Amino acid sequence: MSWVGIDLGGTKIYAVVFDGAGVLAEAKTKTPTQGGPLAVVDAMAAVVRDLGPVDDLAGVGVGAPGVIDSVDGTVRQAPNLHGWMEPFGVADALSTALEGVPVAVDNDVNVGTLAEHRLGAGQGADNLLGVFAGTGIGAGVILDGRLRRGPTGATGEIGHMIVRRGGRLCGCGGRGHLEAYAGRAAMERRARDLERKGRDTVLVDLAPGRRMTSGVFVKALAAGDSVAVELIDEAVGALGVAIASAVSLLDIPLVVVGGGLADVFPRNPDLRIVPAALGDRGGSIGAALMAAGHIGVATVGK
Amino acid sequence: MSWVGIDLGGTKIYAVVFDGAGVLAEAKTKTPTQGGPLAVVDAMAAVVRDLGPVDDLAGVGVGAPGVIDSVDGTVRQAPNLHGWMEPFGVADALSTALEGVPVAVDNDVNVGTLAEHRLGAGQGADNLLGVFAGTGIGAGVILDGRLRRGPTGATGEIGHMIVRRGGRLCGCGGRGHLEAYAGRAAMERRARDLERKGRDTVLVDLAPGRRMTSGVFVKALAAGDSVAVELIDEAVGALGVAIASAVSLLDIPLVVVGGGLADVFPRNPDLRIVPAALGDRGGSIGAALMAAGHIGVATVGK
Repeated sequence: MSWVGIDLGGTKIYAVVFDGAGVLAEAKTKTPTQGGPLAVVDAMAAVVRDLGPVDDLAGVGVGAPGVIDSVDGTVRQAPNLHGWMEPFGVADALSTALEGVPVAVDNDVNVGTLAEHRLGAGQGADNLLGVFAGTGIGAGVILDGRLRRGPTGATGEIGHMIVRRGGRLCGCGGRGHLEAYAGRAAMERRARDLERKGRDTVLVDLAPGRRMTSGVFVKALAAGDSVAVELIDEAVGALGVAIASAVSLLDIPLVVVGGGLADVFPRNPDLRIVPAALGDRGGSIGAALMAAGHIGVATVGK
Repeated sequence: MSWVGIDLGGTKIYAVVFDGAGVLAEAKTKTPTQGGPLAVVDAMAAVVRDLGPVDDLAGVGVGAPGVIDSVDGTVRQAPNLHGWMEPFGVADALSTALEGVPVAVDNDVNVGTLAEHRLGAGQGADNLLGVFAGTGIGAGVILDGRLRRGPTGATGEIGHMIVRRGGRLCGCGGRGHLEAYAGRAAMERRARDLERKGRDTVLVDLAPGRRMTSGVFVKALAAGDSVAVELIDEAVGALGVAIASAVSLLDIPLVVVGGGLADVFPRNPDLRIVPAALGDRGGSIGAALMAAGHIGVATVGK
């Protein structure tokens, strides 16, 4: 049997064919920025077709950003996907577009953590935290070998742990949250703010009209840019505070850090904080593992 | 059947007879401050005898402070018990002193949380955090109906979550931990420090040569003492930060706060933060529930 895993990101859609042991094929495309959920579902179906014929396809898994109802495969809110204003039944729509193949949907951080747990840097660990720092910051929480969901499915909002009481404003309206210091979007806002206030920084020159990616931060850091150094220091410090607190609360010996900030995170000899091992493929591999039934998310369709 | 539950505290030993529904008898004594673990075990055995004849006694549970190995009933470290320098097999020794009655031992915070979960303010909740703020601060973490232990049994160290990066020194050597702001011992140290530095406070007058109990803080607060107001504000703020962070990470809808600070904790309409319902008896009732097999801790003896 084989499964298709799709990592639905704000900028690209990445799909793999997975046979339970390895990746047999992969394909990607840009995430549509017009046409809303229907266009996104069409693009996902097209990427699946680009993978070519798949032997014995048993299911498709989708890791999506935002708030997911994995029971019925609905993406309720997805602030990072253009025009996604209302809840949309992704599993149903994609299954229909793929002639009835069963589809399962979960949060991208959950499936990314699952992939690292089963096949990546977290293999063999019964308790681990998977922290993914991108535009926002989320965590997957694996306790005693099982991914925790929680009563409302909201487990893992490490980005909204408080790292400084009364501190910087977060996109959610709260103050002092990790994401306000270490989320890419917040760091970009802060860099542009500091530049407007007269600080000299190559960050804005490197990303004039476009997104300040983690690659831009890495370049600015290498150039010794003082604003970049300051922002990365703050981000790493804030991540350290949140991770240390999570570890104290939960007795978790292993933290896998993925996303753009993973490479700049300092190693800690007392706690195993390790970079994610599956890189860009982690999300889609995790989605395939989900489709294969590894996470308790039911598929929709057929 | 009935069980005896013992709450072994730094100042008193509190025992109840519990029949699965209610408390049939209770007894208490002062915790010996000389003679080390052996004297403590003798005092616990004496309190059990003070309870009078117990019909159909099936086991004894002990909730103890410090680091516990609940598998073999050993109290490894107990900084709040005098002369407890080495690991000591409490279950074995107490079982022997009680002529072979099976004894189970766990951390006082775990059994206190268990009691609130089964019989107190957390009844009916599948996910809850039990936070006990005393000399130090610990939490019991109930997820999907089960108490989490973690690979080293150290789950629940909420007192060592970081509420202020680089902040006040904690008894453990770390900085900015919750316990450094909201633990009774740290608050007392801070009050005496401020008084030495010239601040006027009734806290020191109310507790001249002795322990600054939470009752002392409540009195000083009622008198409008500015140092007490400042310390309690800091403590409540720090507790709020740690609890909010734990709730974000774990999707926990209910927090039960016990111990001296519970009464001054502000109510939050979005999150159910409620005071513990079992008061002083919670620890011993939880210990009895443990002896009755409610927490997966095996008994030693017989």
